[in-house]
Amino acid sequence: MPTKIFLNEDEIPRQWYNLAADLPGTINPPLGQDGKPISPDMLAAVFPMNLIEQEMSQQRWIDIPEGILDLLYRWRPSPLHRAIHLEKALGTPAKIFYKNESVSPAGSHKPNTAVAQAWYNKEFGIKRLTTETGAGQWGSALSYSCALLGMECKVFMVRISFDQKPFRKSLMETWGGECVASPSNETQVGRDILAKMPDTPGSLGIAISEAIEAAVSDKTGKTRYALGSVLNHVMLHQTIIGLEAKKQLDKFGIKKVDTVIGCAGGGSNFAGLAFPFVLDKINGADIEIIPVEPASCPTLTATPFSYDFGDVAQMTPMLPMHSLGHKFIPAPIHAGGLRYHGMAPLVSHAVEAGLMSPMAIKQLECYEAGLTFARTEGLVVAPETCHAVACAIRCAKQAKEEGKEKTIIFNLSGHGLMDLAGYAKFMAGELQDIVMSAQDVKESRRISITGYPVPKI
Amino acid sequence: MPTKIFLNEDEIPRQWYNLAADLPGTINPPLGQDGKPISPDMLAAVFPMNLIEQEMSQQRWIDIPEGILDLLYRWRPSPLHRAIHLEKALGTPAKIFYKNESVSPAGSHKPNTAVAQAWYNKEFGIKRLTTETGAGQWGSALSYSCALLGMECKVFMVRISFDQKPFRKSLMETWGGECVASPSNETQVGRDILAKMPDTPGSLGIAISEAIEAAVSDKTGKTRYALGSVLNHVMLHQTIIGLEAKKQLDKFGIKKVDTVIGCAGGGSNFAGLAFPFVLDKINGADIEIIPVEPASCPTLTATPFSYDFGDVAQMTPMLPMHSLGHKFIPAPIHAGGLRYHGMAPLVSHAVEAGLMSPMAIKQLECYEAGLTFARTEGLVVAPETCHAVACAIRCAKQAKEEGKEKTIIFNLSGHGLMDLAGYAKFMAGELQDIVMSAQDVKESRRISITGYPVPKI
Repeated sequence: MPTKIFLNEDEIPRQWYNLAADLPGTINPPLGQDGKPISPDMLAAVFPMNLIEQEMSQQRWIDIPEGILDLLYRWRPSPLHRAIHLEKALGTPAKIFYKNESVSPAGSHKPNTAVAQAWYNKEFGIKRLTTETGAGQWGSALSYSCALLGMECKVFMVRISFDQKPFRKSLMETWGGECVASPSNETQVGRDILAKMPDTPGSLGIAISEAIEAAVSDKTGKTRYALGSVLNHVMLHQTIIGLEAKKQLDKFGIKKVDTVIGCAGGGSNFAGLAFPFVLDKINGADIEIIPVEPASCPTLTATPFSYDFGDVAQMTPMLPMHSLGHKFIPAPIHAGGLRYHGMAPLVSHAVEAGLMSPMAIKQLECYEAGLTFARTEGLVVAPETCHAVACAIRCAKQAKEEGKEKTIIFNLSGHGLMDLAGYAKFMAGELQDIVMSAQDVKESRRISITGYPVPKI
Repeated sequence: MPTKIFLNEDEIPRQWYNLAADLPGTINPPLGQDGKPISPDMLAAVFPMNLIEQEMSQQRWIDIPEGILDLLYRWRPSPLHRAIHLEKALGTPAKIFYKNESVSPAGSHKPNTAVAQAWYNKEFGIKRLTTETGAGQWGSALSYSCALLGMECKVFMVRISFDQKPFRKSLMETWGGECVASPSNETQVGRDILAKMPDTPGSLGIAISEAIEAAVSDKTGKTRYALGSVLNHVMLHQTIIGLEAKKQLDKFGIKKVDTVIGCAGGGSNFAGLAFPFVLDKINGADIEIIPVEPASCPTLTATPFSYDFGDVAQMTPMLPMHSLGHKFIPAPIHAGGLRYHGMAPLVSHAVEAGLMSPMAIKQLECYEAGLTFARTEGLVVAPETCHAVACAIRCAKQAKEEGKEKTIIFNLSGHGLMDLAGYAKFMAGELQDIVMSAQDVKESRRISITGYPVPKI
């Protein structure tokens, strides 16, 4: 049996899978401030119309334009590995597979949707994209994508990350992107916040508000905003991960997958691997599908399905999602990509419908799993990805206890070569577990969410 | 035509190519302090006997043991890309291909020999390896390899790099390696130097001396030393790069390669791609083969073929090579992997035999090429690799001027995600060109080399 399976470029999936077509119950629409469903034109200043249509589509299979395939070929298809060395170290009868999204030039799954969003914007005549970034993966991916298409890119990076990770800014600039610390003096939102709190570390909520303002205030109409997770079209673009993985599992001779795992912050890398398997589950397959979140920022495992805003300043519509409340500021864990108060509506809906089994894991167990993985499989994964590895190890150990052969697959969403500070602190014994209590969750939601409409499916 | 070609694991080359079998003239042996050829047993305290035999072998094809193939499968075969976007940007009639060695878990070509050396040492009963590292790529690759084989790894990292790049140490430690700044208090060499020069920035020469001392002073006999470039067996292990590339060019439908390019510090990534093409050239093919070195550390383009030591402290044998003198301390350019006073004997010999056309390029042109590559092909390459990119761009422009279709291939030896400081300084206009004059070269050699035997081929 080979260690890994590549696919040739002509074997790449040529359609994305849209879970919205198959979810049981009613899809809850985004709501405006007035509590009424928003219309497509209300988003037109923020996103190009072709992406707004995709966001609202309930078509099951959506063709990937040739122009986007040409962009994806630069690194895709990505390899699917069997973790035989981890299996041996654990002494488990389980087979563990991982889809290696770290091979993209930006080092994570993020370019899968970044190239697609940039391409659709360019088709629509847009010349410039704005966005926010926390840990820096998304800002890097969008800068990369804009470089390939000759577009401009402006990234508002959360101040504390901007200061901690100067090389993320350098990476974006190498691709021609522009990166400023948020809050900045370039937007009204930023100036107002700086006037009140000159020393603020910033937040994703603030950065989103700045990026949206920077897009809608361009009077030429040639600027739009791009979001790296949460929204339906982002989940859609990421499904190429799971669709490729299925072809590769088939080449490995695997007929039945038992467990599908991904770490979940906004939900996009998890959805990318999982949604094609959710379809199998809807059609009757017996599959356990596990989104893994940090115990310090637990949405799926700790909060009810609610309507909430995507950002602190309430500039986005209200989305139906599991949420800690849009005013919540997550603890400063190293898995910056999982520090988000909400969860993608499609993932949230699927959890409500009983299609998924979310799990929260603490920081130390995740880094311990990351170290084990590095020393067996050899890949140093991102702090976010450590959550998926930790869950895979739990499942493999359980299979050992139960003496069951089973097949586990997880998404290796990114490498950790630009995030080694967390590993260093873990090895030095300087990290602690941070757990959000039920009381903390209740209080956070009370401040942000009380009184909004309640979604039903 | 596809953008890139993968090979399946069962298509991996199963033999390495040894250029020593085919070089015209006599291979000059390493010499001891007395000027006489050294015998294998004189190296036995430093290297395991199986690698010493390989170092001295003149057998043309050498089987790759199954155990090493199993290690290489973790990331190999690596992809061969066609740089269609760079070609378009240059408007060149040339076809440009690049072999992507950045996909290894350590991010460069170094693991190709690191896993092989670790495996041979383990076969010989060795439990622990010592080495030096400058920029950190080699120390990372050996730590990675030792993790896979359950061996210990001790890395002496040049003090100035150790301080500038703390995350390289973290990466080695994540793989279970141990990394100390050199000079250290752990060896007699280190203590002596620290006593005289407590604030020294260190050098590769010092770090090599410490690593050799740490190996030979282990009285259990279970420790050996490993070197990441220069030696014949290292070149041998890297030839898998060029052998894979030939299979992939064939799948691209390319019948004739005109130009082969690699950056050259100690010479290993260049040799890895180039040596299988040198064989074609020896057999009559019309191929231009270009090792590219920095103008601040020019060995092949500026110095005669000489015997010289590999380290400052003269702990290594004298090797026949182009050299600036073993006491030379290269300028602090960002391409740390090219800051070496000598050049691999096999590469040096091939240049003397007229089989190669070396080129020296200045720092600014290299970074400019790196930026162009990042914004067209999308990959951010290591500062060392920028030298190969700059040469490929020169050749492609020349093809345009001459109106000639030609096929160029270069080795993308590593990514630059952990070396972004150089790009940031370049973009900020803070870097200068550093050129070593003929007078500087003469003076450096006068201090180090005068009076040693002169090799002849």
